[in-house]
Amino acid sequence: MDIQRYLQEQKERVDSALERYLPKKEELASNLYSAMQHSLFAGGKRIRPILSIASFEAAGGKGERILSFACALEMIHTYSLIHDDLPAIDNDDYRRGKPTCHKVFGEAVALLAGDGLLTEAFRLMTHPHATERSPGDEALLLDLISEVAQAAGVSGMVGGQVVDIESEGKAVDLPTVQYIHTHKTGAMILASVRVGARLGGAKETLLKALTRYGESLGLSFQIADDILNVEGKAALMGKQTGTDLFKRKATYPSVLGVEESKIRSKELVEMAIDALKQLGPEADPLREIARFIIAREY
Amino acid sequence: MDIQRYLQEQKERVDSALERYLPKKEELASNLYSAMQHSLFAGGKRIRPILSIASFEAAGGKGERILSFACALEMIHTYSLIHDDLPAIDNDDYRRGKPTCHKVFGEAVALLAGDGLLTEAFRLMTHPHATERSPGDEALLLDLISEVAQAAGVSGMVGGQVVDIESEGKAVDLPTVQYIHTHKTGAMILASVRVGARLGGAKETLLKALTRYGESLGLSFQIADDILNVEGKAALMGKQTGTDLFKRKATYPSVLGVEESKIRSKELVEMAIDALKQLGPEADPLREIARFIIAREY
Repeated sequence: MDIQRYLQEQKERVDSALERYLPKKEELASNLYSAMQHSLFAGGKRIRPILSIASFEAAGGKGERILSFACALEMIHTYSLIHDDLPAIDNDDYRRGKPTCHKVFGEAVALLAGDGLLTEAFRLMTHPHATERSPGDEALLLDLISEVAQAAGVSGMVGGQVVDIESEGKAVDLPTVQYIHTHKTGAMILASVRVGARLGGAKETLLKALTRYGESLGLSFQIADDILNVEGKAALMGKQTGTDLFKRKATYPSVLGVEESKIRSKELVEMAIDALKQLGPEADPLREIARFIIAREY
Repeated sequence: MDIQRYLQEQKERVDSALERYLPKKEELASNLYSAMQHSLFAGGKRIRPILSIASFEAAGGKGERILSFACALEMIHTYSLIHDDLPAIDNDDYRRGKPTCHKVFGEAVALLAGDGLLTEAFRLMTHPHATERSPGDEALLLDLISEVAQAAGVSGMVGGQVVDIESEGKAVDLPTVQYIHTHKTGAMILASVRVGARLGGAKETLLKALTRYGESLGLSFQIADDILNVEGKAALMGKQTGTDLFKRKATYPSVLGVEESKIRSKELVEMAIDALKQLGPEADPLREIARFIIAREY
């Protein structure tokens, strides 16, 4: 399969659903809507929503009902980037080649645009294509919302983010770096895969396999990100590189070195692909996404 | 009934549920947990959760299943205060007589503690005392989560907050002040009342009455807050007063004057109480809470 084409097609599917789902602009609070839109359509790769779609379809899911969850995952990811970029945390002026949210709309509106996206994500998950809802779905939907909240919150992304910040400039050990990565990035990657699988109807064995895939992929993804921060080309990435080293961030390259990190990242991708061995061609997108993770240059 | 005693008893009920529901401290991210705890137990009056309980019980609801929603409403309120107090928005050093979250834990951790509380609130709402869940409940729970998200998000609290900030220092008209108040404070007050009523089993006529109560109360509450900012005693309130005037905030007193605002606030409380006229003594707590709103000094 042509992974670039697949990614492009799914990205367009996600983008058009996001446009549909983003609340319509109200006159008085128009800056808030513009700020949300600015960051939501700033050229993200849509990795999380695409993973949820690929996993949904690998599990036999059909139709469009995954899209509200897919969009919610991207809204949560985007809110986390807006807050990360604020002067209170990373103080970044550019992301994906564009000025960050607070550089355009000011800190107050950016902060609230993040809050708005997070809240909207939860609203969206309660309404996955209501017309397609089948009886008995509601208990599953509640479980999925809970799983996303767990992955996004203090036991997941937010927790990892705090440890990441508090580790800056300190000598940290591998377990701490692992904690940061499995929480800060891994949890939401895993949740994307699992939510797709569960909404697609995956039974226990398949869900276990996809969970193993998501765990390996999540860690591999973050290591690849860390390597790109050392070796990537700023022009391709649309943001400064070398910033982790400058800030003395706790990363795999800083603890294990770049070469060892590359080996680890490749091993994890192989583990992710191996977890899918019971699946046929319906899991090809998941396999190719895993390969793309370590091959990408942005 | 003795409203002070009622408020105290319900506050203790909410406080002990909050302690039970707040996620347990993890070693690596311990500052995050301390920050959430600091703000969640900083002496709030628990108006929103108590309203949800009073409304739940007025509608005939029994038992403890309202408590997870009650706590979620308070977590959302607390997150909004943490973010409001940040230098990016109000830059407040004290609240309820204690240093604000970012003064104690730094801006990054405070920002993330807010994000964590908001996310945790949604997780909590998916699990209202699972053992007490009756079949068919799930569709209602999804609806209630959606209603809270709507009230907390861009069409509610977050939207009102943005308009509030953008109106500072400008000459604004009454419709704008009304927009700010119905969105920033009113929406979550109304949601508290409605969520309690719906979870308590209120049918259409009762829900309509309680909705009218919640709408009037929400607006009255914010006007009373604005008046306290002008006339309140800083020592009782635990924070500076007169700040709205200093910041040229869009408030009722600034647009209508203090006396006219007091009249308006009283009228709204009477409207709120009038909305309950079909109800018996089971709605006394709601009536007394409404009277308390304009009589309080903090």
